[in-house]
Amino acid sequence: MDKLAIFPGSFDPFTVGHEDVVKRGLSLFESIVIAVGYNANKRDYFPLDDRMQWIRDVFANDPRIRVEKYEGLTVDFAKEIGASHILRGIRTSADFEYERAIAQVNKAMSNIDSVFLLTTPEHTPVNSTIIRDILKHGGDASMFLPEQIKINIEKSSNR
Amino acid sequence: MDKLAIFPGSFDPFTVGHEDVVKRGLSLFESIVIAVGYNANKRDYFPLDDRMQWIRDVFANDPRIRVEKYEGLTVDFAKEIGASHILRGIRTSADFEYERAIAQVNKAMSNIDSVFLLTTPEHTPVNSTIIRDILKHGGDASMFLPEQIKINIEKSSNR
Amino acid sequence: MDKLAIFPGSFDPFTVGHEDVVKRGLSLFESIVIAVGYNANKRDYFPLDDRMQWIRDVFANDPRIRVEKYEGLTVDFAKEIGASHILRGIRTSADFEYERAIAQVNKAMSNIDSVFLLTTPEHTPVNSTIIRDILKHGGDASMFLPEQIKINIEKSSNR
Amino acid sequence: MDKLAIFPGSFDPFTVGHEDVVKRGLSLFESIVIAVGYNANKRDYFPLDDRMQWIRDVFANDPRIRVEKYEGLTVDFAKEIGASHILRGIRTSADFEYERAIAQVNKAMSNIDSVFLLTTPEHTPVNSTIIRDILKHGGDASMFLPEQIKINIEKSSNR
Amino acid sequence: MDKLAIFPGSFDPFTVGHEDVVKRGLSLFESIVIAVGYNANKRDYFPLDDRMQWIRDVFANDPRIRVEKYEGLTVDFAKEIGASHILRGIRTSADFEYERAIAQVNKAMSNIDSVFLLTTPEHTPVNSTIIRDILKHGGDASMFLPEQIKINIEKSSNR
Amino acid sequence: MDKLAIFPGSFDPFTVGHEDVVKRGLSLFESIVIAVGYNANKRDYFPLDDRMQWIRDVFANDPRIRVEKYEGLTVDFAKEIGASHILRGIRTSADFEYERAIAQVNKAMSNIDSVFLLTTPEHTPVNSTIIRDILKHGGDASMFLPEQIKINIEKSSNR
Repeated sequence: MDKLAIFPGSFDPFTVGHEDVVKRGLSLFESIVIAVGYNANKRDYFPLDDRMQWIRDVFANDPRIRVEKYEGLTVDFAKEIGASHILRGIRTSADFEYERAIAQVNKAMSNIDSVFLLTTPEHTPVNSTIIRDILKHGGDASMFLPEQIKINIEKSSNR
Repeated sequence: MDKLAIFPGSFDPFTVGHEDVVKRGLSLFESIVIAVGYNANKRDYFPLDDRMQWIRDVFANDPRIRVEKYEGLTVDFAKEIGASHILRGIRTSADFEYERAIAQVNKAMSNIDSVFLLTTPEHTPVNSTIIRDILKHGGDASMFLPEQIKINIEKSSNR
Repeated sequence: MDKLAIFPGSFDPFTVGHEDVVKRGLSLFESIVIAVGYNANKRDYFPLDDRMQWIRDVFANDPRIRVEKYEGLTVDFAKEIGASHILRGIRTSADFEYERAIAQVNKAMSNIDSVFLLTTPEHTPVNSTIIRDILKHGGDASMFLPEQIKINIEKSSNR
Repeated sequence: MDKLAIFPGSFDPFTVGHEDVVKRGLSLFESIVIAVGYNANKRDYFPLDDRMQWIRDVFANDPRIRVEKYEGLTVDFAKEIGASHILRGIRTSADFEYERAIAQVNKAMSNIDSVFLLTTPEHTPVNSTIIRDILKHGGDASMFLPEQIKINIEKSSNR
Repeated sequence: MDKLAIFPGSFDPFTVGHEDVVKRGLSLFESIVIAVGYNANKRDYFPLDDRMQWIRDVFANDPRIRVEKYEGLTVDFAKEIGASHILRGIRTSADFEYERAIAQVNKAMSNIDSVFLLTTPEHTPVNSTIIRDILKHGGDASMFLPEQIKINIEKSSNR
Repeated sequence: MDKLAIFPGSFDPFTVGHEDVVKRGLSLFESIVIAVGYNANKRDYFPLDDRMQWIRDVFANDPRIRVEKYEGLTVDFAKEIGASHILRGIRTSADFEYERAIAQVNKAMSNIDSVFLLTTPEHTPVNSTIIRDILKHGGDASMFLPEQIKINIEKSSNR
């Protein structure tokens, strides 16, 4: 069995919660593709290429992790790369309801199953939207970011 | 008693879940007006006239169902057409919280009561937002659409 | 159409919330059977016969309301009396999840559909468990009880 | 102890629910700053200055209440004015999940704690979004607004 | 990697929902131990030995599935048999809140991670409590039970 | 203002989550009575007197904290000791729904308001039921208990 999972998201930016789910996902899958979704018509906070490079820096020494971009349906990209599962973290029961609908529709359309890990308690309140809001207003979000993401964001804001 | 209910929504598009609620609603009401809400300032995915015609096609042989459009407050339109109740389907507990607030405010303003049916389990993950997302990316959403809606969407995309 | 709904519960005791749902249910159904479920192996707070008589007193002048007892599955009793629908009130999203499971199982077993009304906002916190807890400790729960239930409980506690 | 709380929001408009939380908050704090958040890039329904003046009118005789505007992070403004706590009302469990994330992140960043009061049952369905929707369509939202807000909105719509 | 997961529960009785989660879990794990928890002080509906044998019958031809009983903490039994993960199905957001607490405590105590699959939509309303309630009252729960469980329950009730 | 709050519960046992809420409550109230509810007909896990003494040991040096027992309605005891508020911690949205009903009923009966603090993220999964379950099976729950509670439980189990 050479199992590959896709971990899809916009990762704008990638948080300590995301990092934790990917690391724990490696106990279930041989390799994980972190799939950065983009939408040509939607404005992101951080540029797509930066987001991808920064995540690569977080997992620099781990050949089991690949970072790729995709546009369109997650299940289509999952099939394209040969993923058997979609990996997702769930934080709250509001997340859960949303994730359930998406996962059940994905399963109905493609037979690709979704696997859920829970965020650890101390990461539960952290999400990318709150972090962007902190960063926009010059606040310090470093405690919610993986070390390499923090360094990269600082560098990019000094450019 | 000649009871009339209004089944309001944007139906962009009308799903198998909507169809199921309307059909079951006919065991409670003599007739049902499917009221397609529109907002001159908001861009829809499918044109209003198409959405209305497609729903009419779904219920072509049933004189108890009428399809109308409205702008403004649902309770105002309900009063205008003489509806005694607002009919709604609920899928999830997130839906429930939202529907509860709207229904209680409608009741306070107009004394028109809301009646809720639950979607059947296999329709629970289906909603118009997810379907639009599938269609936008060229995916196959036909299993979530009533036969007549599916045919009409195919026709319209071949125009 | 001579529509009959069943409004099942243990009603230990019947609250202002229950009364409100039954009254509003009469705009949907020709008649309603308030079905007081009992379980020979479970101890109730108020005796079954009292509970039934007290509810009859609440609706004394309304021939559309009948009060009956039943043991066993709600759908079996519903079929027995020829009910087309099960009527339920929902207060909170926790209620909703529980009610959804029961309603979907009932539908799968019997084709009898469940219809939900929302409690009015001021009745939302009221449930029979809280009321029993107040009464057990000699508190004043009269604001949560229909007039006739309040009078009967007072009488019974003076016996 | 000279305790000051901040009650942040956009208050577009200020509702009977907000008024109720502030009044009850005065049993916990010596003074409360109602902090009207604004965002230079976002269009509001009512002008910022009107919203502030209208809230001042609601609490005209109470020197313990101050109304101020702020842009940026709530915790930064809270520190600036020397608030020890953030006061919030919670209506529903959907609110709760959102408020929990914000409050826990605020605590992690600033050590300023959040204190929650529940809206009273009859105010539970009321929120500013629903009120704006009613007002936009010429409906009557006066039962959801404090007396002074109602008068001011009427005056402003007659201008 | 020779990955083993534990799928704990009381399985009183084992449902189509349980069967579905185990089957899908086999795409993640080499083998799964279905661990039937018991409590010497608690009365179950079906005898422990029956429950175990019936589940074995469901997976009779699959050497990757083992059925064992345990008393005590799930994490202790998981460690005893060398399981790396706890496999769980989630049906509703009420389930989710409960499962999250248990999973986070298990992780804190043992470093054994929990992995969640969602039930398929049509199995969402089904749980063992509802099934027991149907069976107690002589109802027909066969549509919610795996074929082999159904046959065994029928046999046992004819004994 | 000499504000007194009651912090009611069964505290069987008192957890790090409880300790945290009481400490943070001291920034809102001059003094807090930790009110240990008991029910002569219900069997507890730890004896009432032990639970009370152990909590006293946790706050041994803080004259602002008193520990008392009560039977009956929380609002009655709150009035008896002159408390102006009921202090509660909320962990999850399931907690929230339950707490809201109780708080709104308490307010309706007594005009005593409830004030809510959120547990910190790392304490969110911890509750007394889970801890008792761990202790019953000889597991190590020490990370979820205040230092003094842990010491006392160890002493008591060696008796």
